[in-house]
This record gives sequence, C-alpha cells and structure tokens, in this order.
Amino acid sequence: MATFDRLFNPDGIAIVGASGDVTRFGGQTVRALNTSGYAGGIYPVNPKYPEIDGRKAYASVTAIDGPCDLAVIALPAAQVAGVVAECGRKGIGHAVVLGGGFREIGHEGERLEQDMLAAARAAGVRLIGPNCIGMVNVHAQVIAAFGSLTRPPKLQPGAVSVAVQSGGFGMSVVIQAAMAGVGVRYVVATGSESDITMPELLEHYVDDPGTKVIFAYIEGVASGRALIAALERALAAGKPVVVWKSGKTGQGARAAASHTANLTSTYAVYRAALRQCGAVEVFNAEQVVDFLVSQSAGEGAGSWPAAPSQARVPEGRQVAVVTNTGGSAVVFADAADQARLVIAPLGNATTTRLRELMPPLAAVNNPVDTTAGYPRPEHEASFRAAFETLLGDPDVHQLCVLFGTIMGPSFALGARVLAEATVKFDKPVFAVSAVPASISSEGHAFLSAAGIPLLTSPNRAAHTMGHLADFAQARQRQTERGAICANDVALPALPALPAGALSLDEFESKALLKAAGIPVTADVRIALDVALLSGGYANDTEGADAIPFPVALKLLSRDIAHKSDIGGVQLGIRDAAALADAAAAMVARARAHAPDARLGGLLACPMVEGGIEAIVGVVNDETFGPVVALGLGGIFAETLQDVVYRIAPFGLDEARSMIAELRAAGLFDGQRGRRPADRAALADVLVKVSALSWALRDRIAELDINPLIVRSEGGGVVAADALLVLRA
Amino acid sequence: MATFDRLFNPDGIAIVGASGDVTRFGGQTVRALNTSGYAGGIYPVNPKYPEIDGRKAYASVTAIDGPCDLAVIALPAAQVAGVVAECGRKGIGHAVVLGGGFREIGHEGERLEQDMLAAARAAGVRLIGPNCIGMVNVHAQVIAAFGSLTRPPKLQPGAVSVAVQSGGFGMSVVIQAAMAGVGVRYVVATGSESDITMPELLEHYVDDPGTKVIFAYIEGVASGRALIAALERALAAGKPVVVWKSGKTGQGARAAASHTANLTSTYAVYRAALRQCGAVEVFNAEQVVDFLVSQSAGEGAGSWPAAPSQARVPEGRQVAVVTNTGGSAVVFADAADQARLVIAPLGNATTTRLRELMPPLAAVNNPVDTTAGYPRPEHEASFRAAFETLLGDPDVHQLCVLFGTIMGPSFALGARVLAEATVKFDKPVFAVSAVPASISSEGHAFLSAAGIPLLTSPNRAAHTMGHLADFAQARQRQTERGAICANDVALPALPALPAGALSLDEFESKALLKAAGIPVTADVRIALDVALLSGGYANDTEGADAIPFPVALKLLSRDIAHKSDIGGVQLGIRDAAALADAAAAMVARARAHAPDARLGGLLACPMVEGGIEAIVGVVNDETFGPVVALGLGGIFAETLQDVVYRIAPFGLDEARSMIAELRAAGLFDGQRGRRPADRAALADVLVKVSALSWALRDRIAELDINPLIVRSEGGGVVAADALLVLRA
Repeated sequence: MATFDRLFNPDGIAIVGASGDVTRFGGQTVRALNTSGYAGGIYPVNPKYPEIDGRKAYASVTAIDGPCDLAVIALPAAQVAGVVAECGRKGIGHAVVLGGGFREIGHEGERLEQDMLAAARAAGVRLIGPNCIGMVNVHAQVIAAFGSLTRPPKLQPGAVSVAVQSGGFGMSVVIQAAMAGVGVRYVVATGSESDITMPELLEHYVDDPGTKVIFAYIEGVASGRALIAALERALAAGKPVVVWKSGKTGQGARAAASHTANLTSTYAVYRAALRQCGAVEVFNAEQVVDFLVSQSAGEGAGSWPAAPSQARVPEGRQVAVVTNTGGSAVVFADAADQARLVIAPLGNATTTRLRELMPPLAAVNNPVDTTAGYPRPEHEASFRAAFETLLGDPDVHQLCVLFGTIMGPSFALGARVLAEATVKFDKPVFAVSAVPASISSEGHAFLSAAGIPLLTSPNRAAHTMGHLADFAQARQRQTERGAICANDVALPALPALPAGALSLDEFESKALLKAAGIPVTADVRIALDVALLSGGYANDTEGADAIPFPVALKLLSRDIAHKSDIGGVQLGIRDAAALADAAAAMVARARAHAPDARLGGLLACPMVEGGIEAIVGVVNDETFGPVVALGLGGIFAETLQDVVYRIAPFGLDEARSMIAELRAAGLFDGQRGRRPADRAALADVLVKVSALSWALRDRIAELDINPLIVRSEGGGVVAADALLVLRA
Repeated sequence: MATFDRLFNPDGIAIVGASGDVTRFGGQTVRALNTSGYAGGIYPVNPKYPEIDGRKAYASVTAIDGPCDLAVIALPAAQVAGVVAECGRKGIGHAVVLGGGFREIGHEGERLEQDMLAAARAAGVRLIGPNCIGMVNVHAQVIAAFGSLTRPPKLQPGAVSVAVQSGGFGMSVVIQAAMAGVGVRYVVATGSESDITMPELLEHYVDDPGTKVIFAYIEGVASGRALIAALERALAAGKPVVVWKSGKTGQGARAAASHTANLTSTYAVYRAALRQCGAVEVFNAEQVVDFLVSQSAGEGAGSWPAAPSQARVPEGRQVAVVTNTGGSAVVFADAADQARLVIAPLGNATTTRLRELMPPLAAVNNPVDTTAGYPRPEHEASFRAAFETLLGDPDVHQLCVLFGTIMGPSFALGARVLAEATVKFDKPVFAVSAVPASISSEGHAFLSAAGIPLLTSPNRAAHTMGHLADFAQARQRQTERGAICANDVALPALPALPAGALSLDEFESKALLKAAGIPVTADVRIALDVALLSGGYANDTEGADAIPFPVALKLLSRDIAHKSDIGGVQLGIRDAAALADAAAAMVARARAHAPDARLGGLLACPMVEGGIEAIVGVVNDETFGPVVALGLGGIFAETLQDVVYRIAPFGLDEARSMIAELRAAGLFDGQRGRRPADRAALADVLVKVSALSWALRDRIAELDINPLIVRSEGGGVVAADALLVLRA
C-alpha cells in the first residue's frame, strides 16, 4: 500500500466547519461531496446545526458514527490544532486544512502553525495544506476541497496526477488540459506544505499504479534533494513528470516571495536539477496541455479504465514530417531546431519508395510535401504505404503528420490510413490540425482510437516531440548509468578541516583540492618570519632553489578572503631579491589594511601562461545542497552570465554536457588555429569537484577555483587560485 | 480609391476552369460563391458544359454577358497566359491564379510564368498567385479561392486583414483566431507573388479604412525596402502589423527553400527590419490570436459594422496586476520580465486607498492579491473603486486582472465592475480566465461590451501587453523622429570610387571612412619603390620623421583582401631600420604567395593600445540593401554570435539601442574598475557608417571595420583596420 492510500481513497469524510452556505469553504465541500457520487460516508461537523445540506450534522469529530479516514477542516486557524488532535483520537489519519492565517501572516500565524503541526505529529495525522483549495480523487469522486476543485468543468477520470503549489493557477492549467480531453486521477493543491510536501506526493504518484503521468506546478520546495529523489524515481518508473517552475525572473521571484513562505533557490539551480532528473520542464499552459494530451491520447477520458496507451518512446531525436502545405513544414522545422530535433535525412530506399507512392509534384525529401489536394479517395493505399515507409525507416524515430486545414472526408481518410499505419509500429506519431473536432469528428475518432495525439500547431507538435525525446534520452542515461545525481569517484582520505565558520587560505584550499585529485599549481609556502627577515628568504638557498621563478606572490590569511583587494597578490616576480622586497611590501600593506588579520605566510605560485581561464565554483544551496557552477573567466561569467550549474555529485556524462551547455563552449574547440582545449581534463575536474563538495556537504559553504587554467588537448588543467569557505 | 479596390470588391467574378466537381479547385470556387451570398455576377467559364452548379456556363471569358472585374483562373499553367490576355480584352482588371506548375517546377515552368506575366502587363491585368489558395473579402462575401478559404468555419466580418505566403498554414492560424472570436476583413494567400507582392497588399490594407489590424505570415520577400516602406506606413497610420516570419533556423530555412522560390535573407536581418519598423513580431499561433483578440475585443464579430474599438495605446511599459490567486501573479510576473514590462511600483496614495478597499489579508502592493473568495456581492463597490484607483494612477499604463478559475456570479460581478471602471479611462485593460465562455457567458459579455480582451493564461496576457507596449513605443519614436529607416547625417563629398567589382586596400578604405567623418588611425602610406630600396625608407628622413613609431606595417593591395593570411601584417615595429627590414620581407612574402597581385605600397599604422575592440560591418543584403552589423572583437562575434543588425540608414536612437542589444553590452559599462567606454562615439560612428553605406548602396558589397577601437568615455573611437569591397 502506498503512503497516502487512505488520503486518496478514504472510507468516510468529515467536513469540520461545514456550512449550508455554499459561498463558504465548508459549504462548498459538503455540496460537492453530496453531488459527486462519492460512495463513502459524508459527515458534516458543526455544533450549530442539526442538519446541513440535507445531511445529519455532527456536533464534533468524535460524535461521528461511521467509518471516517479523512477530515476537511474549514475553520479559523486558531481552532485547527484542537480539531487535528480530535481527528487523531477518532482514528482519522489525514486532514486537509483549507484556510489560511498561518505563517504567511506573521508571528502569530507561525505559532498557530507550529501548534497545528505538533498536534498532528502527536496524533499521527498527516496534513495537506494549510492555505490551499484542497484535493480530489476524480476516480473515487473524493472532493476534499473548495473553489475551482468543486466547480465545472467536471474532470473526467484518467491517468494524470497533479500536484500544484497554487491551487487557483494550477486549476486554470488543469481546466485547459481537461478541455483538450485529458483525463485526471488526483489533484492536490499543496498550499503551505506544513506537513505533506510536494516531493512526498510525487513519490506517492510514482507508486500509484493508476498514475502514468504527473504534472507539478512548483514555486519552491523546502528540500531540493527530496524533489530530486522523487523525480529520479519517477524517471526510473517511466512516468514523465511535467514541471512548471515559476518565479524564474526577478519580478517573478519577488511576486512569489510575496505570496508563499517557501524558500526559493535561484531558478538556474532548479533548472539544473530538473534537467538532471529528466523532468519535462514546461514554460506555458500550452506545453503542459500538449504533453499531457500526447500521453493521454487514445485513453478515452470518461471511459476509464481504458486500454493503457502504448507509451511509445522515441529511440532518438530524428523525426519525419509529412505535410500538405509548405508553410506548416517550415514552421515545424523552425520549432524542431529550437527543440533540438533533427529532420531525419531519408535514405535512398525510403525516398525511392516515396517517389513511387506520391504525386509527381510532391517533395519526397523530409519534410515530405504531398502538395495540396491530397489525399483523395484514390490515394488511400499509397498514402498508407507512405506512412508505413517512413515509420519503417530506422532513421526515423518519430513521425508528425501536418493535416493543415483539411476536414471532412479528406481528413477522415488521412486520419484513418495514418492510424492503420501507426498501429503496426511502436514509434510515437503525432498529428496536427487547426480544424476543431466539432467540424472533423470522424477523423478525430480515428486518431484517438489509435492513440495518436492531435495538436493544433506544427510548432507545438515539434516542442512536444522534443519533450518526449528529452524524456526518452534521460531515461536511457539513467538506465545505462544508474542514478543521475551520483558519481562513482571514490575520494581518497581528505585532510582534517578546522572547526568553525572560516575561509581556508589559498594554500590550505589547494591542499584539499590536491587531495581530491584536482591538479593545482606547484606552489611554495614561505613562512612569515623567513619572508620578513630583511631579504631573509633570498638568503635561504635551499628554499630559493625551490621557488619556481617567475612566480606570483600571494598573501596567505584565513581572515582575508579577497587578497587582491588589499594588494595581497603580486605577479611576475623574477628572482629571490624581488621576492623579498615584494614580501615586505605586501605584509606591510596587509598590516595597514587589516591590522587584526592573522597572516599565515606567503605563497609563491608559478606563473601559468596560456590556456583558457575557467571558473569552477561550488555553492552549498540552502535547498539543493552542493551545486557546481562552471563559467569562463573575464567577462564571460560576469557580464554575459554564461554560467551553468549541476547538482552534485555527478558523473562524466553530466560534466561533459555542462561544458557543452556554455554559450561560449566553442572557445574550447580551438579558435584561430589554436589547438582544441583539454575538455576531458576539465570534465574530470568537474566530477571531482562534485564528489568533493558532496563529501564536504556538511561543512562547505562555497568553493571558488578562479581561474582553473584549461590547456590544450593533453595538457590538462590546473587550479591557479582557490578559496574554500567553511560553515560551522 | 486604394489600389486594389476592384480586386477586393469586384462587380462580377469569372471562374475560368469552372467545374461541377467540388474536389476540383474551380468546382470549389463556384460552389463557394453560389452559397456565400456574394451580390455580383458569377460566371463559370468552361466550354465543355452549358451549366455548372446550377448556373449558366460560358464558353470563354469574352462570352461573359455582364459586368466582371475579377477572374479566378483554375487551369493548367500552360493555358493561363492566354486567359490573362483575354481578361485584358474583356476589361477584367484582376485575376487570381490558383494552380501551380510555374517557376517552382523548374525551367519550363519559369518560361510559362514569364509568358503569363508578360500577358498580364500587356493586358493591364494584376495577378494574385500563382500557386495559391486565393483570396476572400469576408464583408462582401467575395470568395476567389479553393480549399480552406471555401470551407468552415465561416469567418465573421471584422477589421483584421490577412496576407500569407502559405495559404494552408496561414489559414490554420486564421481559423484559430476565428474560433477565439476575431472577425476578419480580407485574406489573401499570395502564393508565388509573380505580380502582386506582400508589401503591395500591406500598403493597400494601410489605405483601407475598414482594416484596423494586419496579420502577415512571411517566408521571404523580394524587396525588403518595399516591406519596410509598407510597415513604416502602417505604423504611421496606427495600424499594428502582426508578423510571423518563418524559416528562422537552419532546418526552417532549408524547409522554406524547398517549397518556395523566394530569396530568403537571414532571419537576423528580417528581425532587425521588423523591430525597426514597429511590426509586432510573433512566434506562435497563440501570440497571433491573442494580439488580434486584444485589438478586436468589443467589436462584436458578426455584427459588423460595430462601434470602433477604442484602440487604447499604453503610454509606457508599466503595468498593474490584480489577482485572486498568488500563482497566477507569479506566472504573469515571469512573463512580464521576458516581455520587458515593469510591474509598476505603486505610490503611497494608491496603496493607502487600496488598503481601505481590500480585505485585511489582501496584498496591496503590485501585484494586488485580493485573496481567494473574492469578489462576493458585498465587495461590488470596493472592487470597482480598486480598479479605478489603479487605472487612475499615472504610473500604471496597462491593467491586467487575473480572474483565475472563478465563474458564475462571482466572475460576472468581477467582470461587470471591471468593465464599469475601464470605460472611465483610456488605458488598455486585459482580463484572464481559464474558464471557457460556455460556463461563464455572463461575465464574458460584460468584458466584451467594454472592449476588454479576455485571454486564457497570465503569461499570454503579459506577452500581448508587451507587444502592445512595443507597438506604442515604436509609434512614439516614429512620431518624434519621423521615419525610422532614415538618418539626417549629411555626408560630405566622398572620394570618387574606381569602377568595377574590387576590394579597396586599407589606405583607400580608411580614406573613404575619414571622408565620411569616421575617425581612423593616422597612417602613413609608403610607396613601394621607397620601401624596397634597400633601407631606402630609413634614409628618407622626412618620411621617417612622420612615421608614428611604434607602428604596424601592412601590405596594401586591392588584390589581397585578407593580408594577414599571407604575412602582410607585422606589429610592433619600433624604428626605421626595423621597418625597412620588415618591408622587404613582407613584399617578398607577398610576391611568393600572390605573384599576380598588384601591390599598392605599404601602410605604417600607429599601434593602438587599450580600449575595447568592436567590429562594425556592412553587408549589402540582396533583399534589404545595406545592413549595418555590430559585434565585439575576439570570440564574441565568432563564437558567441553576439552580433546585432540594423537596416541602414538609421539615427542615433537606433545606434544606441543597437549597442544596448549586444549580450556583452555590459562590457561598455566599465568592468573591474575601468572607466565606461565611449558609447556616444561608437553610436556616432554607427550612424555615419549607416549613412555611408546608404550613400554607396549601388556600389558597396561589404565593409568591415575590424577592429574599431572604443576608448573610455571622452576618448572616442578609431578604426584600426578597414576593408571596403565594391561591386560593379
């Protein structure tokens, strides 16, 4: 039994704060349950009334005289904790708390929320909400909700389960999907997530055999790792999770902060996590609707349970397109480029066969253009054979047929032969028509029966096919290499770290990198007393020999994180005498600027010439934990914000994709006759940094390797500077 | 009378190649006209039949016995020229040629097309097509078309005129707009545009008083300048032109090339032209539909002529948002950021008033969140007053109300008070609801009556409001400064140019720049004989004094465009002796690599230190003429493809926006303590380059100023190298 089975399939529902007034939350819940067809007991609770909406009302939860698994609480915040405790005593395991007035209103609300949570934990009651519109199980007609979850349009049963952090906005998307024929299983508006969180619900959906696809609207989660774990499990189970992450932009994040109490990491980190875990990230309602339609096609919403759809998964990113109007193919191709789909080059065998089948003026290269006036009745056999030819071509992984504006018998014929061809193969097939079902019902029925999704625009079809290819590719990666947020680098023993929140100096930071197998420059640390002895170091022959002149001289101090700001870095020192002078001046500057800083000595670093300056960083994100960032030095990271992120730890594959994702990735290919850069060594370091940051996840605050010099192929990389900041 | 009045409002239509078979083009036209309610004469022409679809058929065009202004020609390509000539003799001024078989099929078709065009010119007949689905005038029930233009859904009359280069795809978009309630005036599928072109139609729509908004689907135009002229006129007339330009990407452009014969400039150039002329560029059908809905709201499609909509135009980019669910506001804000809208900061007076009007838990900063359960009947007065308060705030330029999923009486109440507030102001107001009109008809009617567009998603509303703000801003620019593709730089007399297609050498190129007022380095040209006299130049005291050592020595030759490739550039020459040696070696290398090249001497250029390296270029685009490009040196232009374009000539305003549009624009702001760069001097040079390239539009092939050194503020810019390529 999955975690929340009694929540979604309760035997009896109490509505605490029930009302006969349907403008009240509790009134809407009672009315909705009274008319939904829910088979269990319905228990309005309100001591003021003997009867509510034609049902016996109960004075309290404990007065309920039948089996009851779920309470809907529609009461002011101050009364909720008491009712939750009562639920526990009555053996009610789950409650949906509709109202607000908790932490989103300030200190007093925060206290009420803590009381409620304490009562729930003590009583063994799990809570949805508070401050939410509730939840429904469309299949069992469970409506523990108010507002749009109780109003038309009536959702039809299906295999899509939904979890949204804004009930109002989430339902506006669900309604659009429902209007497009998508059937729904569960919808939960999670509200403030005091107890049950978005990732827990996703885990339940993964375990639920009736859920095939998941839609999540996310503003922010408390535990990024829990989200990742749920997404990874969904991927392993072959259940796509469509995620709309809002609060992406400056204004969006401010708007989110003003209405939820969730901590929100930067969108770039969420985006990295979603991509790593194979979630289908969407950016508008149309993309949600189209993907859900693509996964629900042929399911027959309203006639649940239907034959499971074929869950066709493309083997690669190559697509074939058939059109009867050139413009649609151009628009498809534009979008295919954006979606990183490839219009498959067709082999000779395929084009020769198509040439036999198609009219003389048809284009038989991909996109295949049948020309206008196609298909007529006499084309039936050849049109079907053309589809079979394309679907049988191993270089074609998905097929999209653009029916343009044809309707009536032409469309019905095209749809029927496409359906007949489709069922002989297991590749995803999409159809596009702008003509509404009301005008083209016969053709729509043929497509639906064969599980072929019908979308309204060529570009929307291309984006949906791209999403499907992304999902398939992520599954393949996961199957081949196991969990994505993991790597198999076994780190050697690391040096012990000092206690407390502090910055390691460059020498200490590099020592740690070196221990983790990350190449660093061969620096020489010079003790402060030696350096300060007037020319002392120059006289120390043994030491002087070891200095790899020319060097950069740098100040070592845990108390001075940004040493160059106070003159703590001097480049191009050519000999021992210059070094001694520089050391004295540097220490004097440090004493002047930061009189209290404890100095740990000086560091002589060999000057690194040539190569590309990369920046590799780690932030220990409050939501996701260690996140590795890669950018290029100079203005790239700062001005162009050309920085990519991955959640640590990760393997070589992710590291390589990280490098490729930089807008300036071309720089590594060797410009103006230069040799290509050592991408392999950079990828290796990214993996090791990810392992190191994961191993130190309880202590690391940030790591900044800036620059990491990337030499040409075979030359490796070397960390020329590093700063590790620890937290307590 | 506008150009094509008889085309759109013909007194009598001949269908040449008419047929009783409605699967044939000509059969569809006759049937459509017979049932459309068209008031003029309908003349099927086909010598084989006495009667077609219940009408008298004519043996030839000349046999027609009534007034006739338009011929629809549905015949094989070889017969078209003859019929066009006959039309001329009959006084028929316009013909729509439906069929293909012309230049898109190769040489034979090309010849038929030339014959047709010659016949049309000789006969004074203007042609739509060939290879198109035709045209309709929805108001006059003129249907000179086949296929989707003759099929359901029936278009309702309105103020949107449409010109599309793919009838099939274009109609798929028009159908979606029609389903959303948009009324239509004219639709023309332009086909191969042998005669009448897209820009000519746009000009006609601008002159047509019944057209208020224009939608154009463009794959490519023959004359970019004609397109620009039409778009500039539309902007001046206050008629927004919504443009979908396809064939943007590699795969898209290849798909376009395979089905049209249009020359297609790179998308980047089109994009620049569209932005400069204030066209509303859209990227999907939803954006087309939403913008047309926003301009058609309240027009009452089907009840034409209606009161003209208020054509509200925002004064700036600041918007106010009212929501009843936080999530919708977050999604709106994300999209607002992308659309460069600003969620207006509200002043104290406004927030104080809102605080009085709204429920205690409401958020009264923008976005204003009324909280769920709003509005109830008792909120009527305060809700209306809240809308009035926001619309009365001078910092609010547009208002968007997110109704979420409310329906029935709540939605009707909200819609009514919004409508009542809206009519008191002249600012654009948008409403968002995901609930279909079938469920919320009363509220829909209130909004419609007040001309408030109702869109389905917060993000779609934000993008549409952004498009409206873009259009308003472009109008304002044009009003303030006149035509956008113009600048007022009066160039001084330029040196005479040599005849023929050739490259000017660096000295000549820079002389031309200098004459146009563009700063160049103070170079010294050294005659070849002087340079080659062993050490001769070093002995030429007068000349040696003038050389601004240290210099870069460069080879001058019109025959060697890329001099550095053959060792024709040597940097850092410090004195006369070094120069003499370098000159001898350089000439020897040139003789070895390019024995036939005529050498024009050598150029000693002062070494320019510091500054930012920009690249300013001109291409004489085959469609748009001179186009100015700006990028940054090094890998920016090459690897990051960070290059922006403007159609020449243009003024300072465009030049400044060009600089700001670079992704790396931040580099000019002064990084790491450097002073900001001299943007003003760069903008001045861009304007002068645009004026120069426009003046030389008949001779220039390309210009490459690389690098143009941009010094810090007040330091100006200087062209360190330049290459001008002329065409014959």
